[in-house]
Amino acid sequence: MASMARLDDDTLRDRFVAVRALSVALARPLSDADASAQSMPDASPAKWHLAHTTWFLETFVLAPLGHRPFDDRFGFLFNSYYESVGPRVARGSRGLLTRPSLREIVDWRAHIDGAVDAAWGRLDGPARDLVELGINHEQQHQELLLTDLLHLFAQNPLGPAAYPGPLRAAVQPEAGWTHHDGGIFRVGHDGAGFAFDCEGPAHDVLLRPYALARAAVTNGDWAAFVADGGYSTPALWLSDGWAWVQREGIAAPLHWRGDDAMTLAGLQPRDANAPVAHVSFYEADAFATWAGARLPTEHEWEVAAQGSDAWAGNQLDTPGPVAPVGGTGLFGDVWAWTASAFLPYPGFRPAAGAVGEYNGKFMSGQMVLRGASCATPRGSSRVTTRNFFYPHHRWQFSGVRLAKDL
Amino acid sequence: MASMARLDDDTLRDRFVAVRALSVALARPLSDADASAQSMPDASPAKWHLAHTTWFLETFVLAPLGHRPFDDRFGFLFNSYYESVGPRVARGSRGLLTRPSLREIVDWRAHIDGAVDAAWGRLDGPARDLVELGINHEQQHQELLLTDLLHLFAQNPLGPAAYPGPLRAAVQPEAGWTHHDGGIFRVGHDGAGFAFDCEGPAHDVLLRPYALARAAVTNGDWAAFVADGGYSTPALWLSDGWAWVQREGIAAPLHWRGDDAMTLAGLQPRDANAPVAHVSFYEADAFATWAGARLPTEHEWEVAAQGSDAWAGNQLDTPGPVAPVGGTGLFGDVWAWTASAFLPYPGFRPAAGAVGEYNGKFMSGQMVLRGASCATPRGSSRVTTRNFFYPHHRWQFSGVRLAKDL
Amino acid sequence: MASMARLDDDTLRDRFVAVRALSVALARPLSDADASAQSMPDASPAKWHLAHTTWFLETFVLAPLGHRPFDDRFGFLFNSYYESVGPRVARGSRGLLTRPSLREIVDWRAHIDGAVDAAWGRLDGPARDLVELGINHEQQHQELLLTDLLHLFAQNPLGPAAYPGPLRAAVQPEAGWTHHDGGIFRVGHDGAGFAFDCEGPAHDVLLRPYALARAAVTNGDWAAFVADGGYSTPALWLSDGWAWVQREGIAAPLHWRGDDAMTLAGLQPRDANAPVAHVSFYEADAFATWAGARLPTEHEWEVAAQGSDAWAGNQLDTPGPVAPVGGTGLFGDVWAWTASAFLPYPGFRPAAGAVGEYNGKFMSGQMVLRGASCATPRGSSRVTTRNFFYPHHRWQFSGVRLAKDL
Amino acid sequence: MASMARLDDDTLRDRFVAVRALSVALARPLSDADASAQSMPDASPAKWHLAHTTWFLETFVLAPLGHRPFDDRFGFLFNSYYESVGPRVARGSRGLLTRPSLREIVDWRAHIDGAVDAAWGRLDGPARDLVELGINHEQQHQELLLTDLLHLFAQNPLGPAAYPGPLRAAVQPEAGWTHHDGGIFRVGHDGAGFAFDCEGPAHDVLLRPYALARAAVTNGDWAAFVADGGYSTPALWLSDGWAWVQREGIAAPLHWRGDDAMTLAGLQPRDANAPVAHVSFYEADAFATWAGARLPTEHEWEVAAQGSDAWAGNQLDTPGPVAPVGGTGLFGDVWAWTASAFLPYPGFRPAAGAVGEYNGKFMSGQMVLRGASCATPRGSSRVTTRNFFYPHHRWQFSGVRLAKDL
Repeated sequence: MASMARLDDDTLRDRFVAVRALSVALARPLSDADASAQSMPDASPAKWHLAHTTWFLETFVLAPLGHRPFDDRFGFLFNSYYESVGPRVARGSRGLLTRPSLREIVDWRAHIDGAVDAAWGRLDGPARDLVELGINHEQQHQELLLTDLLHLFAQNPLGPAAYPGPLRAAVQPEAGWTHHDGGIFRVGHDGAGFAFDCEGPAHDVLLRPYALARAAVTNGDWAAFVADGGYSTPALWLSDGWAWVQREGIAAPLHWRGDDAMTLAGLQPRDANAPVAHVSFYEADAFATWAGARLPTEHEWEVAAQGSDAWAGNQLDTPGPVAPVGGTGLFGDVWAWTASAFLPYPGFRPAAGAVGEYNGKFMSGQMVLRGASCATPRGSSRVTTRNFFYPHHRWQFSGVRLAKDL
Repeated sequence: MASMARLDDDTLRDRFVAVRALSVALARPLSDADASAQSMPDASPAKWHLAHTTWFLETFVLAPLGHRPFDDRFGFLFNSYYESVGPRVARGSRGLLTRPSLREIVDWRAHIDGAVDAAWGRLDGPARDLVELGINHEQQHQELLLTDLLHLFAQNPLGPAAYPGPLRAAVQPEAGWTHHDGGIFRVGHDGAGFAFDCEGPAHDVLLRPYALARAAVTNGDWAAFVADGGYSTPALWLSDGWAWVQREGIAAPLHWRGDDAMTLAGLQPRDANAPVAHVSFYEADAFATWAGARLPTEHEWEVAAQGSDAWAGNQLDTPGPVAPVGGTGLFGDVWAWTASAFLPYPGFRPAAGAVGEYNGKFMSGQMVLRGASCATPRGSSRVTTRNFFYPHHRWQFSGVRLAKDL
Repeated sequence: MASMARLDDDTLRDRFVAVRALSVALARPLSDADASAQSMPDASPAKWHLAHTTWFLETFVLAPLGHRPFDDRFGFLFNSYYESVGPRVARGSRGLLTRPSLREIVDWRAHIDGAVDAAWGRLDGPARDLVELGINHEQQHQELLLTDLLHLFAQNPLGPAAYPGPLRAAVQPEAGWTHHDGGIFRVGHDGAGFAFDCEGPAHDVLLRPYALARAAVTNGDWAAFVADGGYSTPALWLSDGWAWVQREGIAAPLHWRGDDAMTLAGLQPRDANAPVAHVSFYEADAFATWAGARLPTEHEWEVAAQGSDAWAGNQLDTPGPVAPVGGTGLFGDVWAWTASAFLPYPGFRPAAGAVGEYNGKFMSGQMVLRGASCATPRGSSRVTTRNFFYPHHRWQFSGVRLAKDL
Repeated sequence: MASMARLDDDTLRDRFVAVRALSVALARPLSDADASAQSMPDASPAKWHLAHTTWFLETFVLAPLGHRPFDDRFGFLFNSYYESVGPRVARGSRGLLTRPSLREIVDWRAHIDGAVDAAWGRLDGPARDLVELGINHEQQHQELLLTDLLHLFAQNPLGPAAYPGPLRAAVQPEAGWTHHDGGIFRVGHDGAGFAFDCEGPAHDVLLRPYALARAAVTNGDWAAFVADGGYSTPALWLSDGWAWVQREGIAAPLHWRGDDAMTLAGLQPRDANAPVAHVSFYEADAFATWAGARLPTEHEWEVAAQGSDAWAGNQLDTPGPVAPVGGTGLFGDVWAWTASAFLPYPGFRPAAGAVGEYNGKFMSGQMVLRGASCATPRGSSRVTTRNFFYPHHRWQFSGVRLAKDL
């Protein structure tokens, strides 16, 4: 992570308790089987998210204090992509770990939470930075837990609901564009408060005048794209995108089912006014071409968002139905695909050590998304946050906000 | 199934109750997650076995009596390879059905058992034949439930035990060969008592004199094959087998782990006197070549087994540790790979209708195994039973009994 | 190969010269590029066939006499499946050997032919057996050269002709069945004259009465199967066959193109009276089920063929148009898929040494075809010949002759 | 293409003749088989390059003038990625087109060259722009012809030479760095002279001070990276890169063979002073990390190259040995991988129509390379040229020039 002005102690402790509790609350409606299954290699079981975030604290915060592991074997089971920290269960085989059970993982969580609590007074500055990193890391996994769970339940012909509905109705989105002058602007995280390593260093960028749509593209807009043959017109698509459409037989956003959509509250009627979600970068780009517009660069988005209230939008506070409901905020509802590849900022240097593997190694082949979604824990996304996924990925709440040149 | 002299009513009813109860008993130590996971497309979740066998009764026995399905959606979820009975969940995606839960499936089972019980007096002859077929079908799935579960637990680095150990020690196997004259012999099922369709018609075969080993090949024998470079000597292998060894990096039977083996009682020391299990046809054939012998044909095995007590060997009665323990019986411990492809007997005709899809459609590419294994429910295998798997399959308790020409 | 009464010297020498010359004549219309390309891993370039058969003579006949290889590197390039004789070019990469050129290979052939001629007087009995094996081996490759070439040209939208047409018109095939008594019959090669190892030992088999169709199934018959929905009716298919049809999108024999078919004389109108060719075992079996019949076993076929003139049918004498033209002979036009898996005969033992790898290692997963095709060199197929391919293979001139029980 | 100040008529005509002639000269040492084979889906046969560039002229320049196609079927065979212009031969099946022959393609070329010559006076401005685009398009294919041919010959264990050696010895490269100030710079093509569409619009970029290595990384440097365990140290690699190294078993640049390297003059001793070639972006990035440096952005490279002589370096004039020989020029020897993803410049708009598919559709997933290589036709690369390949690609003459922050 970038250097940071540290949170005061009570705030950090309160956030630690709240974040750790939310993960468990999100998993409460899940059966042991629900929490153990893995619907594709890109996704992980809910249980794995609960365990991996706990392993992070045990390994990076508690182990240096001499804490004995709760179970020596869990490190192997719940390590993820940290190549430096030993062998791992194959990414696509996480769903075969039916033991330890969800209950045992929840017990482990309680044990670790207690150990962090007991050790609190002995945590020095760097250790508290790691706690803060752990909190933010866990919030990322909370969002993944929800999107992975939605993907799992969407494979089940029964269309189960994880949380009780009904969903709120979307409001009519605001039409038109906001205009932005060109010039030199400061972007990236300046080190005040928490940020992930890839958000810095802050630096100047040169922008040309541009316009940004006041609202995200809606399900209704997308239905018009579908009706106009959007998915069968190669000229609208990037070459890789067209190959993907053909190979995978793509003809609609991921969770559309006829006039309904699969949600965490089960199968629900699709709201034409709600922002479209679960589209890939390829789809976002093709839609923009069809609409005679383009995707914004990540810097255009960031400059437009500077001064925005990152707490606007329907982000996650508590377990419950999760779905885009619309509005005009840049934060919430759906992440916005940008036209920017996920690459290092000028002067970027990965941190040393295993935690230093954090984001730099993923700077290849992925595209940046900005903002936040309805599944993003409130307060965990900043104006400088750079989310990133491969251009074919669409199991996140990923959507589209158009831009154009002026 | 072949025509059959029907069991008397009480015997059939007793067997129905006992078989239905054993399935549930086998699943008792399993968590909801254990019962829901699928470790490979060839295997199915335990829950699926419990459900599919219940779907069979509901569809083929109860539905014709006007029984309303317990849940209309279960037919789609738990149908298997019956192409005539509508769409199905993709074979490799059964592990994603985390709902309905194990508990709901067990409730469904109780409901169907009650419905069969209530309808008993109204079952005519053909319906009772279907009950008997259902019993035998379920016993096949009991064995699969155990081998699929072992495969699942073997993927878990924790090596969990499904049932408490310890395992019994194997006895020293008897050495030498039994000699058998050539001539014309009657093989196949003659229609008295239950048999699967592929076991008939009974017909004459012409055999040349042959010898059959008194005991199955043991772990100790196999270790000598490994030590002698068996897995790295192409001349010992069938061409397809050698390609498989190279492609998959095969160097030992499936569940060997160093000097231990993964069992349903967890990781256990490997017993040199116990029959080797979990070898493929390719391995069995290569071993036989190495040993200067060959595999018996299915008819050689059957003629030798005529008059044998099919109840000998350590077959499954009750839940508990399941592993080969040795002895000289042809039934029990491990299935014997034969040199015979699974092909129709002269005069074979598949039964009409959906149940008629039963075995005939699998008569391509698979090899016959004979006998029974420690995971075969006692009483469910006959001298005419033809088990069959693809030549690379080895997650069953499949082993080797050698033969040679005289 | 099986033991054999040796051909007299002049006959052997004449056949050697004739067979070697036919291979070169078959390749004469081919460009260097035609002879170098490989259309799929199962096929080989024509140049490779010309070279591999030459390598066989150089390695097994000439090398023991102290002959220095023409080019040391050719052994590596043109060895095939002889695991004992060192590394090989990957099976699917043979089409990348654009050097040596077709011309260089033809020169190599002439050199080796000269060397064999010069050494003729020094060839002892076993060496002459190897020459005879080499002749028969080369005849097998002549047929493959033609079927591989047809497959290659069929990939080209231009539909090139290898040989000038037009094709002869097929005669109206004879209807009805020949009836055959049951009993004990002698089958397999008894050692008089050449045979491949897998054709023996001769042994007795027990057959039940059966009938065999007087003619092979025709294109017209097959069109009726297609029109009746044969390719979309799962109940007609073996399970593996149905999966293959679905996965590969199979809806007609391999080289059908609308009302035409691709042949070695280019795209030609399809003759309804000609035997259907280029169908897989799966298709043959489904057709037989649809027709209310079955495929013959290889022994039924052989017993019916005993006494037949193996020279009947339109087998290959000289380069020219190659296509089935019909008639009632068991030899010629198309190979007949049988219901028999390719397995060792009782008492079969592979020969020792590298040549001993010949056929035994392929006795897994393949089905036997009997007879001969229009691409089989005249005189190279016997009543005991066992051709074999995987059940999905269909680039050979493989067809169907129906059987039924009496 | 971008708008352009047109070449005067004689210059254009001279260049047309010279470029068309060079393609044929490059193919002269090739056999029909050499020119027809395809070693991987990314590569194309030499014959295909010769034909496709001819199809381009026939379709875009001559057809609008009423020219009748030389052969109606060639459009289908030799179209490439122009989705708007109808169906195509599958990308990986180009090597199966053994007909038409190399000779026929060369004849077609002569016919088209004559037709363009005859029509010259009737070509209006836009048509001449298309001729100029055709020339530049053909020069790109000349480079691909050479790299594809090298890849093909590298698959052949004989290591054939396309052109006679020996190669020139590399000179000792200059050490150290050139320093560059930060500031606002103009990059991209301003419309004067030919450029591909993706090179514009010209626009300002903001750069920070940086240094660029005086010379490309050499084979000697790379050998030190290998010796230091570069290919087995995950911390040096991007995540996708490490997965690629593991999956493909990568341990050296593509054409290294022990102490030799495969070249277009056959297998040759590797020159430690020559620039390393045939490395992927993943390898380039890992090397830079290992060296404590980074790759330059494409804009850093372009600003440093402004004013450079694009004709420096050993670029292609005539057929002959092609290999990096070193020096300090930014143009020639090897393309330099940059840290920049291939994305549209601000204000980029694809041209309308089929030719408009040109580059924009590839702006996803690929990385920019700058400069030129020894296989780049002299005069065909500019300071604004943006070459692009996927990060795992390495069959081009792709190398590394390091950068660092100041």
